[in-house]
Amino acid sequence: MTNDWEAIEGGVCAPVGFRAAGVTCGIKNPDSPKRDLALIVTDFPAETVGVFTQNEVKAAPVRLSQTYLRQAIPKAIIANSGNANACTGTVGMENARRMADTAAKALGIRRREVLVCSTGIIGMQMPIQRIEAKMADAAADLGNDPDANNRAAEAIMTSDTRPKSEAIRIKVAGKEIRLGAIAKGAGMINPNMATMLCFVTTDAKISKAELQAATQEAVDHSFNRITIDGDMSTNDTVLVMANGQAGNRSITKGGPGSRLFRAALKELMRRMAKKIVADGERITKLVEVVVKGAYTDADAEKVARAVANSKLVKCSWNGEDPNWGRIIHAVGYSGARLREEMVDIYFNGLCAAKHGLVTDTPLDALQKEVKEPKFRVCIDLNLGKGEYNVYTSDLSPEYVLFNREEYAAAKQKK
Amino acid sequence: MTNDWEAIEGGVCAPVGFRAAGVTCGIKNPDSPKRDLALIVTDFPAETVGVFTQNEVKAAPVRLSQTYLRQAIPKAIIANSGNANACTGTVGMENARRMADTAAKALGIRRREVLVCSTGIIGMQMPIQRIEAKMADAAADLGNDPDANNRAAEAIMTSDTRPKSEAIRIKVAGKEIRLGAIAKGAGMINPNMATMLCFVTTDAKISKAELQAATQEAVDHSFNRITIDGDMSTNDTVLVMANGQAGNRSITKGGPGSRLFRAALKELMRRMAKKIVADGERITKLVEVVVKGAYTDADAEKVARAVANSKLVKCSWNGEDPNWGRIIHAVGYSGARLREEMVDIYFNGLCAAKHGLVTDTPLDALQKEVKEPKFRVCIDLNLGKGEYNVYTSDLSPEYVLFNREEYAAAKQKK
Repeated sequence: MTNDWEAIEGGVCAPVGFRAAGVTCGIKNPDSPKRDLALIVTDFPAETVGVFTQNEVKAAPVRLSQTYLRQAIPKAIIANSGNANACTGTVGMENARRMADTAAKALGIRRREVLVCSTGIIGMQMPIQRIEAKMADAAADLGNDPDANNRAAEAIMTSDTRPKSEAIRIKVAGKEIRLGAIAKGAGMINPNMATMLCFVTTDAKISKAELQAATQEAVDHSFNRITIDGDMSTNDTVLVMANGQAGNRSITKGGPGSRLFRAALKELMRRMAKKIVADGERITKLVEVVVKGAYTDADAEKVARAVANSKLVKCSWNGEDPNWGRIIHAVGYSGARLREEMVDIYFNGLCAAKHGLVTDTPLDALQKEVKEPKFRVCIDLNLGKGEYNVYTSDLSPEYVLFNREEYAAAKQKK
Repeated sequence: MTNDWEAIEGGVCAPVGFRAAGVTCGIKNPDSPKRDLALIVTDFPAETVGVFTQNEVKAAPVRLSQTYLRQAIPKAIIANSGNANACTGTVGMENARRMADTAAKALGIRRREVLVCSTGIIGMQMPIQRIEAKMADAAADLGNDPDANNRAAEAIMTSDTRPKSEAIRIKVAGKEIRLGAIAKGAGMINPNMATMLCFVTTDAKISKAELQAATQEAVDHSFNRITIDGDMSTNDTVLVMANGQAGNRSITKGGPGSRLFRAALKELMRRMAKKIVADGERITKLVEVVVKGAYTDADAEKVARAVANSKLVKCSWNGEDPNWGRIIHAVGYSGARLREEMVDIYFNGLCAAKHGLVTDTPLDALQKEVKEPKFRVCIDLNLGKGEYNVYTSDLSPEYVLFNREEYAAAKQKK
């Protein structure tokens, strides 16, 4: 199944029949030149599925989009950065509706054909007039070239340091199918997605049931396997729109092209997920934690998450310190079944601990591995066949400094 | 039940019949003048109970002490800092036994009458000869005055910045009963105790069953309610020795003095627990998280721990930022049952959010509260009668810097 896909340019604009835009509204700060409002439009009705945050506290746009998804076939996504429209009550719900409304009017479609996403600070009302004032500009900005995609990718950035987009193409029975994505991430990245938005477009013709299954599987193997700070946001959303313009025979569950499409969607989301971790707030290391030999996959997941979220382990990575003792202590409290005297721990290929005990691998050899900007920690419990992996990062002093003062700063700026 | 106890001097030496010592062995670093070996001795056999780490990876001294506790009535505790003797295999078990053995010989008692505790770095063998070489000095150093207590308290410190001890006395039917404690804490403080050691002495006469129940209750209301970094160590141990020298009628479950003794033990452990958090590695804030109005106490505990362990929430406290949005997002992913539109959040007495929405409490008033070195965050779910509280801290850039390089540094020092 390797390399049945090919990377291409254009992000969400790569598939046929999609356009994108990104403009500046000054949502967070009226004086900022940063783009903060994105539009993605399909010129043909698109089967669309969503995966949303599991936080009990859900932002207004999340609740609105979940409702609209049940009521209509979407034709557009409007997304802003700078304000999460979360914990904003009935005024927040009204503002989310007004976002859909202004986009619908500008695009000549119905309100419930517009999905709404927001990301940014929690607990402040959206300055909705600033969005409404720029809606005509956003509609006029729509294009189907890579630049239009990049403007949209920029507009959803919060503390991201770079826009994130990818596109790939596959061939199904001679027909070319394209998939494209933009995403934003940075802080609060944890299981069940955390503060991240990802919008995927594809011109595949596919049944909604199959699109739903493919999306859930891809999310489980990508965004649900990244964690930066262990927090989970109120706004996380993955939306996948399939407008059927590739001309392929409709992909259904188990039917022709299904396996290939699922693999491609998974590959696309994995690429986006890795970009999100690599651009995590003030991180210096991208670390894959691989757990093998657990009794069950669920046990392996517990171990992987305990290690990936341990503050002390993450501090040691920041210090380029091959501290396997902190790793095994996190393994020990993970809740997974284990036997200490069976546990092996590797940094990349080098064995730091064998059967729970230090090896004679030289310290400087281990240090060389953790000095790399990307490395892999492998933990083998040597008990069974359970496996799991997550991508994560170190914890840096700069992360703490960066996250100290958001609320007061935003309040004062407003 | 308030103020039935009185604070006194002397720590673990305050109760009748206990002596303590603290000497320098150079366990972590042969050139360091820091005390690193403590002894606590009872001159009369003492009913002793222990509460140990729930980490699946248990240090050798933890396993040894659990065994000895079942086999004999203890007369001494030997405890070292600088090396945890964890993940050290059969050699580590042998070294733990040798610690008990050398103490027993120096004190003229049996090996299994000695409980062993270690704290420090994981995964390196104990330099046992350094301890054996100084055992006679330690025995000679034993005293029953406050200075001897302080030497023992110093000897168990790792990254603690100050020794921790307390003692109180109560009167039961005219007889004075004394309780004393020393403890060490600092990093890895979380439910189920984390890297902390606490040794409690008392001259109370008390049944073992009642002592066990009183200890578990006190631990649940003290050490199990503090969290600094959410990690849980391989070595945590609370030991309580009761040598019966106060001359009181034996305290039994529900019998005379039981309620008073339990309250006193709880008070003593609470004081030690607060000292541990306040001296957490590189913290600048001591924060009590109080959750009220949950459906159940268990739900309240989930909320309290999610908030207290959220990296983003802790960063905001470090920045003296009254960011209630981050708090409610942690409430949302805690797993507790809740309704966003019912949640109130207070900083000390000031309401930052009411019914899930921002209040008009001025920002500078809220900032004033979080600028205090100690403050309380109260979260009222307004659903039921469930309550829980934990003591925790902020997350500072200095914490990360401090925890970057332990392993390589220790390896190189050795």
